[in-house]
Amino acid sequence: MKKLWIVYLLLIGCFLIYVLDYRSETQLNEQWNTGGLRGEIGEKYVMVTFQMGIDYWKSSLKGFEDAAQALNVSVEYRGGTQRDINEQITVLEQVIAKKPAGIAISALHPLDLNATIDKAVEAGIPIVLFDSDAPASKAYSFLGTDNYNAGVKAARHMAELTGEHGQIAVVTTPYQQNHQERTDGFLETIRLDYPEMKVVTVKNGKGDQVVSKQSTEEILADYPGIAGIFATEANGGIGVAEAVRENKDGARPKIISFDTDKGTLDLVKSGDISATMAQGTWNMGYWSLQYLFALQHNPNTAQIPGSSPIPRRADTGITVVTASNVDDYYAK
Amino acid sequence: MKKLWIVYLLLIGCFLIYVLDYRSETQLNEQWNTGGLRGEIGEKYVMVTFQMGIDYWKSSLKGFEDAAQALNVSVEYRGGTQRDINEQITVLEQVIAKKPAGIAISALHPLDLNATIDKAVEAGIPIVLFDSDAPASKAYSFLGTDNYNAGVKAARHMAELTGEHGQIAVVTTPYQQNHQERTDGFLETIRLDYPEMKVVTVKNGKGDQVVSKQSTEEILADYPGIAGIFATEANGGIGVAEAVRENKDGARPKIISFDTDKGTLDLVKSGDISATMAQGTWNMGYWSLQYLFALQHNPNTAQIPGSSPIPRRADTGITVVTASNVDDYYAK
Repeated sequence: MKKLWIVYLLLIGCFLIYVLDYRSETQLNEQWNTGGLRGEIGEKYVMVTFQMGIDYWKSSLKGFEDAAQALNVSVEYRGGTQRDINEQITVLEQVIAKKPAGIAISALHPLDLNATIDKAVEAGIPIVLFDSDAPASKAYSFLGTDNYNAGVKAARHMAELTGEHGQIAVVTTPYQQNHQERTDGFLETIRLDYPEMKVVTVKNGKGDQVVSKQSTEEILADYPGIAGIFATEANGGIGVAEAVRENKDGARPKIISFDTDKGTLDLVKSGDISATMAQGTWNMGYWSLQYLFALQHNPNTAQIPGSSPIPRRADTGITVVTASNVDDYYAK
Repeated sequence: MKKLWIVYLLLIGCFLIYVLDYRSETQLNEQWNTGGLRGEIGEKYVMVTFQMGIDYWKSSLKGFEDAAQALNVSVEYRGGTQRDINEQITVLEQVIAKKPAGIAISALHPLDLNATIDKAVEAGIPIVLFDSDAPASKAYSFLGTDNYNAGVKAARHMAELTGEHGQIAVVTTPYQQNHQERTDGFLETIRLDYPEMKVVTVKNGKGDQVVSKQSTEEILADYPGIAGIFATEANGGIGVAEAVRENKDGARPKIISFDTDKGTLDLVKSGDISATMAQGTWNMGYWSLQYLFALQHNPNTAQIPGSSPIPRRADTGITVVTASNVDDYYAK
């Protein structure tokens, strides 16, 4: 009788082990077989910038990290501390030497990194550029703002602010390509789509707060009925806002600025700046990592040699920030 | 004694259940925690085209399916059978009525689908456009060829083929935006970068093989030393090749065409056409699904209301197909 119970016990025990282990296996297999995009934690992707301490990169890095967590891979953040191209080249060479699974770079100079980038791509390391391109390099993709479109969007918002009517000025940094593109998109949109608006002057603010303030004082003197001013970068926008604030009894043009540094956001909040154009920086980081992951794992089941499994270029978009949504843009 | 065994049995059984269930839970949780991008198989994403039977869509659909398999979601392929905008609107409305997780559409008309697309986006259904845009709609993104860049790339390859020297002609379909952009990119690149090349004429081939052949006969008569001809679409390219083949004792200009239908590939293989420009159609499908998945699952952990977690625009790239890689492009 005693022996019989032991046999029962063993049989029931074995059965339970079998059933539960089977159940557990099934659940696991179901998950594996039905896929899920998932890398190895030892797979390291590196983001490389310059002036790496500034706030501007935080949101891109957050996107890069969000994608890494979703895909179960590791990330590292590297970069020069200054706006120094030799420093950035040195950092990039150090990163390449460790043979990471992929690198996303914001290029401080459109040409000077090409040799280093090309060497890495030829050695089989996936590289994409974000925010600032090196268009002649062998990097697989560039993810950043389409600056012409950003200018178009600024023009449409300016039309809204001014009732599609009146004299408009632009304060920009000519000869710097991204600013020239923002200006072109703005000018052409006003010219083609808003016959009762007219851009009367384009001033050189030199990317400087003081120079932009002086330019704006000239604008306010020359065009006392000015309805709106578009500043294509953040320092300029702050200078424009100062000049207008001090122009107490004169024109109060609507101001549209660019980017979302704290100084600009504060002026949007106070109403001095009507709107600022926020770049899709989170997108730059998130999709940089997604693209690098695709280059590393190649999901194209019918891959044609020489063709790339990722887009050549992604316009990461632009959002208009006004007093009504400015609070969402302060760093948390 | 007997009762004691029953108690033992129950205790051991419970312990085994507990241990194995715990083990199974742990394994599952580990997988979830370490991430992996993964949806539900009940999550259905729909691709909508027109002329849905033609070969052109196969590669985009393959990309869409590859992404769906990787992400563990379902796909459905729908579309009009003809080039009929009312048919496409009806199909799109039927798709929307089923509330899918996301829709990727190639728009047969740049405006006529806007009302239907906007209604779906407002109802919370993620929509992206691919291949053919509806730029004023509320769709979140457009994934397709940057046609200006495609023209630039064709110009650079033409320069290679002609030793950066000689008279060049273009056969295109003016007033159709994508063809105008291809032509513009080609013309500007030759003008700016290749001083010893000159585009001597731009002919209207009307997207037609016979008309393009006639245009080419005129080109061969007017410019007997012509070094190269760029056809901005596939029918035109075949017509150009016919005219040149029949021009037995005359000029043998290098021909660059567009797209990878079988007729064009055969002429690349035979050497009549030197190169054809292949669009990144797999990319269009793969990244359409990735973008829709991101809209559905929103991976942005610091999401700002009103900002989009996907790029506004993706240039899906272009590849030069020559006799050396043409075999890779035949449908498998």
